[in-house]
Amino acid sequence: MELEFIRRLRERLPSRQGALLVGPGDDAAVLAWRNAGDCVVTTDMLTDGVDFRLEEADARRIGRKALAVNLSDLAAMAAVPVAVVVSLALPRTAGLALAWELYEGLLPLAEEFDTLVAGGDTNAWDGGLVINVTAIGRTTDRGPLLRSGARAGDAIVVTGDFGGSILGKHFDFTPRVREALYLRANYEVHAAMDVSDGLSLDLSRLCEESRCGAELDLAAIPIGPAAHEAAGRDPTAGTPLERALGDGEDFELLLAMPADEARRLATDTTLGVRVTIIGRFVALPGLVAIDADGVRRSLTPRGYEHRFGA
Amino acid sequence: MELEFIRRLRERLPSRQGALLVGPGDDAAVLAWRNAGDCVVTTDMLTDGVDFRLEEADARRIGRKALAVNLSDLAAMAAVPVAVVVSLALPRTAGLALAWELYEGLLPLAEEFDTLVAGGDTNAWDGGLVINVTAIGRTTDRGPLLRSGARAGDAIVVTGDFGGSILGKHFDFTPRVREALYLRANYEVHAAMDVSDGLSLDLSRLCEESRCGAELDLAAIPIGPAAHEAAGRDPTAGTPLERALGDGEDFELLLAMPADEARRLATDTTLGVRVTIIGRFVALPGLVAIDADGVRRSLTPRGYEHRFGA
Repeated sequence: MELEFIRRLRERLPSRQGALLVGPGDDAAVLAWRNAGDCVVTTDMLTDGVDFRLEEADARRIGRKALAVNLSDLAAMAAVPVAVVVSLALPRTAGLALAWELYEGLLPLAEEFDTLVAGGDTNAWDGGLVINVTAIGRTTDRGPLLRSGARAGDAIVVTGDFGGSILGKHFDFTPRVREALYLRANYEVHAAMDVSDGLSLDLSRLCEESRCGAELDLAAIPIGPAAHEAAGRDPTAGTPLERALGDGEDFELLLAMPADEARRLATDTTLGVRVTIIGRFVALPGLVAIDADGVRRSLTPRGYEHRFGA
Repeated sequence: MELEFIRRLRERLPSRQGALLVGPGDDAAVLAWRNAGDCVVTTDMLTDGVDFRLEEADARRIGRKALAVNLSDLAAMAAVPVAVVVSLALPRTAGLALAWELYEGLLPLAEEFDTLVAGGDTNAWDGGLVINVTAIGRTTDRGPLLRSGARAGDAIVVTGDFGGSILGKHFDFTPRVREALYLRANYEVHAAMDVSDGLSLDLSRLCEESRCGAELDLAAIPIGPAAHEAAGRDPTAGTPLERALGDGEDFELLLAMPADEARRLATDTTLGVRVTIIGRFVALPGLVAIDADGVRRSLTPRGYEHRFGA
């Protein structure tokens, strides 16, 4: 049965497969890699009830998201996407029909970002839906961007806006691959990550890896319309600003750039995506929030923390 | 919490990390890949109740198996293992203690095969245990071995013995990485795959990819002691020979080699693993079994087929 699935998948995949020397159907895939740079690898597993609710969501959006979160990680490294492999644990009752819906969401995004679907593993079991995507990219000749390169004095730069992603963006966001590659090629960037667990929490992580701290200008934070809408629906869960600082799954880029480079970027209209300077990295560890009146207070990082049992 | 896990994992990993330019903790891992050959990728997802039973099995054996099945796929391609990424969906009640046990089984095998643990994704959810490993390897200068290269007249060659893997080998088998690389370097090999779903079923798949058929000499099939033991315990489930032909998860190599090369290999004592010529590839599609008296009959491929719902 899985062979039949692979056969259908082979037919559905674009015929020009570029770097794919061996595709789905053999024991492994082979990607042409002569002079292709270093190899960047990331993997993300999405599970029913945590990253989506299969009962409520269109399976195509789930499949798309499983790829998009991985492309967002490649973007954070300033890597060019090359290929993905896709593993599915399908509820036995849903079976291959569900697998197709997931692929129908995933494949257009893969094509949009010239990402090969190199293979996968399709399983049925008695549990809920699990989808795992591993993405492979290549570094450009400027090398990867890491979390560890921010320096005191660098500007904190973000793409897009923040907060309220749960209302839809967490499914439908565009991974910032093109933006990251453009920035890497045309600007000096010291560090980068993608904001997946919350702006303030992820900023604190980038600071930790870079052994520095950060000052945030609260009035500069780009609060998304969804943050306002979410705060309006449930005022007890925080103000729009609090949601922009603490909601997960924005999948925007968080960058450390020399201040003059950040100012140059702020006037660059070719990017097509809003870019905002929201503060600066400083030598002293920890986060400080500065409000519109210049009042400073310590900021506790908030966001989505993975919760485990004993 | 996941950060704490990554910290512990970083401490546990070998300090010499060779090709690992960026390891666990950033948005993605980076593997040094200058002049490293083409990139071979495979992924396998194991689920509770299908590939193991968490209630009955030592979690270390599950973690080891999740890596071993991927290394077996790289072996089938004659690829050198480079790195793996590991995704876990952990039952909330078991949590990180279970994650550590899985890694305690996986890490020694990774070290044995010089395979870097480059990163992963560790999640808790309300479902059962799912473990996904994606393995990345590199081709040697002789290139990858595919399923599609068998030619009429080639000998059918296998490593090890077959059947009854469920009694223990499916957890504790040694992936045939060293053997595959030795064979690729020292012999002419036309095609290869690993036997994961059953010898006769996987042979039929290799034949299909190579557009040929195969004749099996039944008296030559290396029937493992476990096949005899399993058949003794449950005679209704098949004879030892039937189990050797149809049981899944042997994880041995199945090879197509020119007949004279196969004969040369049969006298090669450096390999350290039993190698057996079990028949020959022929032009006519389909499998034929030839018994000790020379009687020929058509053989229906049997093995583990992935079962799905609608």
